[in-house]
Amino acid sequence: MSLSKKLGAEFFGTFWLVLGGCGSAVLAAGFPELGIGFAGVALAFGLTVLTMVYAVGHISGGHFNPAVSFGLWSAGKFETKELLPYIVVQVIGGTLGAAVLYLIATGQAGFEVGGFASNGFGELSPGKYSLTAVVITEVVMTFFFLFIILGATSKNAPAGFAGIAIGLGLTLIHLISIPVSNTSVNPARSTAAALFADTAAMGQLWVFWVAPIVGAILAGLVWKFFESEA
Amino acid sequence: MSLSKKLGAEFFGTFWLVLGGCGSAVLAAGFPELGIGFAGVALAFGLTVLTMVYAVGHISGGHFNPAVSFGLWSAGKFETKELLPYIVVQVIGGTLGAAVLYLIATGQAGFEVGGFASNGFGELSPGKYSLTAVVITEVVMTFFFLFIILGATSKNAPAGFAGIAIGLGLTLIHLISIPVSNTSVNPARSTAAALFADTAAMGQLWVFWVAPIVGAILAGLVWKFFESEA
Amino acid sequence: MSLSKKLGAEFFGTFWLVLGGCGSAVLAAGFPELGIGFAGVALAFGLTVLTMVYAVGHISGGHFNPAVSFGLWSAGKFETKELLPYIVVQVIGGTLGAAVLYLIATGQAGFEVGGFASNGFGELSPGKYSLTAVVITEVVMTFFFLFIILGATSKNAPAGFAGIAIGLGLTLIHLISIPVSNTSVNPARSTAAALFADTAAMGQLWVFWVAPIVGAILAGLVWKFFESEA
Amino acid sequence: MSLSKKLGAEFFGTFWLVLGGCGSAVLAAGFPELGIGFAGVALAFGLTVLTMVYAVGHISGGHFNPAVSFGLWSAGKFETKELLPYIVVQVIGGTLGAAVLYLIATGQAGFEVGGFASNGFGELSPGKYSLTAVVITEVVMTFFFLFIILGATSKNAPAGFAGIAIGLGLTLIHLISIPVSNTSVNPARSTAAALFADTAAMGQLWVFWVAPIVGAILAGLVWKFFESEA
Repeated sequence: MSLSKKLGAEFFGTFWLVLGGCGSAVLAAGFPELGIGFAGVALAFGLTVLTMVYAVGHISGGHFNPAVSFGLWSAGKFETKELLPYIVVQVIGGTLGAAVLYLIATGQAGFEVGGFASNGFGELSPGKYSLTAVVITEVVMTFFFLFIILGATSKNAPAGFAGIAIGLGLTLIHLISIPVSNTSVNPARSTAAALFADTAAMGQLWVFWVAPIVGAILAGLVWKFFESEA
Repeated sequence: MSLSKKLGAEFFGTFWLVLGGCGSAVLAAGFPELGIGFAGVALAFGLTVLTMVYAVGHISGGHFNPAVSFGLWSAGKFETKELLPYIVVQVIGGTLGAAVLYLIATGQAGFEVGGFASNGFGELSPGKYSLTAVVITEVVMTFFFLFIILGATSKNAPAGFAGIAIGLGLTLIHLISIPVSNTSVNPARSTAAALFADTAAMGQLWVFWVAPIVGAILAGLVWKFFESEA
Repeated sequence: MSLSKKLGAEFFGTFWLVLGGCGSAVLAAGFPELGIGFAGVALAFGLTVLTMVYAVGHISGGHFNPAVSFGLWSAGKFETKELLPYIVVQVIGGTLGAAVLYLIATGQAGFEVGGFASNGFGELSPGKYSLTAVVITEVVMTFFFLFIILGATSKNAPAGFAGIAIGLGLTLIHLISIPVSNTSVNPARSTAAALFADTAAMGQLWVFWVAPIVGAILAGLVWKFFESEA
Repeated sequence: MSLSKKLGAEFFGTFWLVLGGCGSAVLAAGFPELGIGFAGVALAFGLTVLTMVYAVGHISGGHFNPAVSFGLWSAGKFETKELLPYIVVQVIGGTLGAAVLYLIATGQAGFEVGGFASNGFGELSPGKYSLTAVVITEVVMTFFFLFIILGATSKNAPAGFAGIAIGLGLTLIHLISIPVSNTSVNPARSTAAALFADTAAMGQLWVFWVAPIVGAILAGLVWKFFESEA
């Protein structure tokens, strides 16, 4: 598969992840009486990944997330030279997804941008969780996200089901951690939302690059044990 | 497969899509205390397609939607001569589905038809979104719906899982965009609901033919890049 | 497969369908603040069937429902001589499932039996729907339930996915029609609940035998067209 | 597969089950306005198992639960000598998962530990159900959990789908029984939560070892009938 097709797949996949996941939060979560709540947002984030893994996973591997690219690289399953292009395209795709969401959301009279589904700690955490709690959460959640990805795509796992396990795994991660950090586990998604947020989210963005990537790299190293000869 | 069987499959599939999707909205969404809300409606629309793709996808391809037929045609995967018969049958099936829903709904004393789950912008949008926001939403949502369909049914995607990806993709689209346009991405579904609505929905129906079909055709063209030789 | 194993599978499957589906409604639907609502009950009913189709579908065919047995028979896919034993065992299994639910539910001080998740029309319909609306709903919903079952298990449908389509199809049917009839589409489930209900449900039970079986038989006849040589 | 890899898989799997399942309950279930409720917690518990069955089921069999280990042993599908190591690792993994959850949860000012998603009867049951009701519930729910596991992994069931049936089966069990016992069916999960609970949960813990294991062993014995030669 040519690199341009891979990058195209990552572009549309991350665009969709941000538009769909953050979109459900910004447009539908708190709709009076009938809103979808955190559970609906959790389902939406997971389904962006489930749908795109089946749509273009066979083209690019279906990362849509710099932490995923780092985790697969750390497990020895993704080439170093593709790391940077993937991440650049993911951030661009996610940002354009957020831009389209912004365009739609401002088509409602009286819309206030607010956090725009960005991630944060302290005052910017939905439940006002501390920096420490947010860092632990993001490291551990991304660790398990990669653990699921690496396991479900390993050669002994049943073929074809990885998209379900990975997508619904992301839903699960949101069911747990939206109250804590608004759930990132994805630096591209965090960057895209922070760029449009009408809060201090940009100042906290470093957390949502460092913690997910640390968790992902750890998972890649741990997974090597399960695939070792011993 | 004979054309009559294909058209029969599209008839029952679109009947079910409208009866099930709009039915959950009209009958169950706002039921006092226990109603299913937007998330339940989103799930219902997606499951109409998931179930019918597995039931008759092997017969007709499982479109149930004129925009899907146009998108597959634009990608070179559906014959021009079948476009019109498919669309006619989809509109008839959807309309009869809405008629049965009307019959059921009016079996409740004091039922008021209202919007009858029709689509709209401005005053007829659930969140009072502008025409521009609705057009962008419908174009982009249908674009990604077709992107998922084309990707998940491509020959390198894991066989059999397309029905899950496509059905839950439609659920996702509803989780995002019910507040904006009440979610169409399907001109047959919009027509069926508008015919019974006790509002000015018919006057806005053109939007829900033009925008989904434009989005779908664009997706077909973009997808050709991913299947090109280069 | 011996008949005794088939009947054992139908016994446990229908036991689970009633205990799980009606159980979620009786115990959890209206729990203060955190209850699962109609959407949770819809999911529960669907998952009883999804889980049992994968567990014992390869043993008995996974009916758990007299209407399903009639529909498969009408389509020429189930032997006449097994119809009665299947139905008897389904009713017994469902009734014992309801008995266990009754035992659990009465372990809460102040529990009132009420409708016990039984089906009904008029005053016994959740939304007070008329007999006509309930009959149409049950005929049409069971028709499509069998349509999905027949389609998803046909030899050209992707193998293995039928349990997902059928189980989530039943979820969908509940998302639409709980407000109307409390959703039967299954005479064994209706009988089991009515036996314990502290209402006039037994007097309306005939509706939930006749309407589902009529809808199922119609679906079997229609399906023959799709499998005909022409 | 080496025993150390099997135990590693059970460790991470049970860690995730407790962190994810109990985590969704402690952090997200009752979040003001947007909380996920019992249905979200039910989904979370099921998805911990669904994701881990696909991730490491091919390594350890994917038990993550002493009752599952006992049930498979009782059906003749798990070796006696591995029973104790599996259970020890499950309890340790689950307890560490609860410890991480405790660390995160206390990162919110004013957090009160309370029940910490532990299981109980009487005053410690969410709906104040009696000991008898709780025992029946846990025996029957675990019986059917093992019935689903044994059936969906049997050689005649469609390959690969077991993770979906088992994971969503656990979701279903929670949709039914959270109000009764807060749903255990898993002694390791109950132990982990009770250790951190600020209630008398430890004094009731014996129920959530005895009842699930009894239900599981019964299921193993019943399943032998379905796999017998007769």
